[in-house]
Amino acid sequence: MDKPDVGELKPPERVLMGPGPSNANPRVLSAMHTTIVGHLDPSFMDVMDEVQDLLRYTFRTENEWTLPVSGTGSASMEAAFSNLVEPGDTVLVPDNGYFGDRMAKMSRRAGGEVSRVAAPWGEPLDRADFEEALTEVQPDVVGLVHAETSTGVLQSDLPELVDLAHSHDSYVIVDAVTSLAGVPVKVDEWNIDACYSAAQKCISCPPGASPLTLSDRAMDKILSRDTEPRCWYLDLKELETYWGSDRSYHHTAPVTNIFGLREALRVIAEEGIENAWERHHRVSGAFRDGLEEMGLEMNSSDDAWLPTLNAVRVPEGVTDDTILRRLVEEYNIEVSAGLGALEGEIVRIGCMGHSARPQNVLYLANALGDILEDEGVDVDAGAGVAAVSEGLQD
Amino acid sequence: MDKPDVGELKPPERVLMGPGPSNANPRVLSAMHTTIVGHLDPSFMDVMDEVQDLLRYTFRTENEWTLPVSGTGSASMEAAFSNLVEPGDTVLVPDNGYFGDRMAKMSRRAGGEVSRVAAPWGEPLDRADFEEALTEVQPDVVGLVHAETSTGVLQSDLPELVDLAHSHDSYVIVDAVTSLAGVPVKVDEWNIDACYSAAQKCISCPPGASPLTLSDRAMDKILSRDTEPRCWYLDLKELETYWGSDRSYHHTAPVTNIFGLREALRVIAEEGIENAWERHHRVSGAFRDGLEEMGLEMNSSDDAWLPTLNAVRVPEGVTDDTILRRLVEEYNIEVSAGLGALEGEIVRIGCMGHSARPQNVLYLANALGDILEDEGVDVDAGAGVAAVSEGLQD
Repeated sequence: MDKPDVGELKPPERVLMGPGPSNANPRVLSAMHTTIVGHLDPSFMDVMDEVQDLLRYTFRTENEWTLPVSGTGSASMEAAFSNLVEPGDTVLVPDNGYFGDRMAKMSRRAGGEVSRVAAPWGEPLDRADFEEALTEVQPDVVGLVHAETSTGVLQSDLPELVDLAHSHDSYVIVDAVTSLAGVPVKVDEWNIDACYSAAQKCISCPPGASPLTLSDRAMDKILSRDTEPRCWYLDLKELETYWGSDRSYHHTAPVTNIFGLREALRVIAEEGIENAWERHHRVSGAFRDGLEEMGLEMNSSDDAWLPTLNAVRVPEGVTDDTILRRLVEEYNIEVSAGLGALEGEIVRIGCMGHSARPQNVLYLANALGDILEDEGVDVDAGAGVAAVSEGLQD
Repeated sequence: MDKPDVGELKPPERVLMGPGPSNANPRVLSAMHTTIVGHLDPSFMDVMDEVQDLLRYTFRTENEWTLPVSGTGSASMEAAFSNLVEPGDTVLVPDNGYFGDRMAKMSRRAGGEVSRVAAPWGEPLDRADFEEALTEVQPDVVGLVHAETSTGVLQSDLPELVDLAHSHDSYVIVDAVTSLAGVPVKVDEWNIDACYSAAQKCISCPPGASPLTLSDRAMDKILSRDTEPRCWYLDLKELETYWGSDRSYHHTAPVTNIFGLREALRVIAEEGIENAWERHHRVSGAFRDGLEEMGLEMNSSDDAWLPTLNAVRVPEGVTDDTILRRLVEEYNIEVSAGLGALEGEIVRIGCMGHSARPQNVLYLANALGDILEDEGVDVDAGAGVAAVSEGLQD
């Protein structure tokens, strides 16, 4: 219990191109540098309104129940599952990635009876399989992952899957952690009942306050529960006293994170949400085309390509460890390894938010090409970088 | 879903003298302005070690299981209760303030059978009553509030109560939200099994990452649970994979909040924890003496006086609403109203962390005196401010 010898904070300046966090927009960090006010300050009530409006804009929804949950993405995820799933409810969730597994775990803890619908890791759910599972399970609650952060897979037919689930009277919870603000997410148009995300992906805000929106239909289920949700901190009925019209104390909100989220969402609104989607598609598309030109292979099929997270197959002659280590040590670039069934098979390269900029994908393509050539892998680094550059000019 | 019209963030510059948050130390806000790194970055592993060491220093403990929970104070509170309380466990918690009530709610959600030991709001638990309740309930888990944020009461015989609970083989969880780093909290010397706090009180860091420490004995109970804790996000067995020696992914840590907490704890270590306790006692003591000289009355007895939060009785001739409103509007000072049984009876005036400085208590005593005289209350403002000034010079 002596005084620890801890010096000044001097983190390295990384280019964050992993599955998150992405680099925070400097404007966001400045907002987080702002002198704080109390969570019940009259001025903070206005900030709360603004953040809720900005979240609605970003989620493309009119949902009244739209709020930042006081924790990182897993907290908004568990807020959705622990409130919508009641003990004894049947729950159907995907089995094709890490976050479908997490949905299963959270649902079980909420008292749900969980069934799974499987696809190989690295592939989206098959619609016929999903329909079959719906018919068999008749789930009260369905979880769907729009963008699987562990595999870099976009469930591009998500709206059709939501419709199918509704035809079985299920409530649908959608994981938009790696899609919100990076690829189109349209909560109202797609009739999603509950949708959650995180701040540190395409919103480019440090993690700590996490977007969540719920339809009136979902809230009706929550407000008419027979039993209390099992987590007090994430109980949406309780949170409504603070984020709803009462604005009365439930727990202390993370004021600084809310300030940061406000600025990050404001940046998105200034750019325009459609323009943000287009930028991710364009910048990441140029990067992907460049890697393919270099001689690398993407793990996802074209139909399941996720612009915000490219899953690149590890080429012959090198390991993922080597790629990751050299990128960090020699170039200050963070990318990430595969998880679960794809461990060692892929490298996950994010292209999200403030990180999704031409200078970053050019720098990364260049670094990756240099490393692979240096490791003796059969790639054409120059052709790859040139293709990224050309793609960015289109 | 039009773009919300949200302007630049311009919060008022408040002097935060309520029950929390306190003003953040500017060094902490600068640390939170730092470019972020990934939660699995090699450099962040060092930051995690440093924060854990600094937390141990602040808690006065050698506990291996010492970590910041990824949420505000209620999250570290629920992490303690939802992990230590197993379904069917008997739980004894106080009934003399808002946070004892919250302990009861969280324990019930964890599946505990809750009993209460009561004292009037504004008074500490009586030791004989506590002992009687222990004998009657034979609780598996006991919750104790060291400093009741809702009433401004210090349970000054906390170590004796912990010993009593241990003589009944109970596990003791202590709420040190408004005491840690402001008044002596000695986790090891007092044999506390689990102790939680918040960042935004005497640690002077914006809320979002909240201190928690557990003894080996407490962790043994948690690791040998028959059932999983009901909240995945706060499951300490899972969190151990990240905060323990594995450092493997559980959920994305709130990197920026951890940076801030690190700097805030570093400031405390630089001052020296004993000096921090002494400063709170001296500054708040001068303030209390000044208010009494002015003609105001403290709600707590001398024995239960809580230096970090003065509960001042609302004098004849004015309402708490008027005091709060005028302090904010005319002086930019935040203080807070009473809760529950003390609503309308007291004003809660914090004196915590970076807010616990001579200039703040002098300014607040002056403002309060001016307002009360202006409202026609029978006080001697000048004598009060002079007494604060004299007390600060002792």
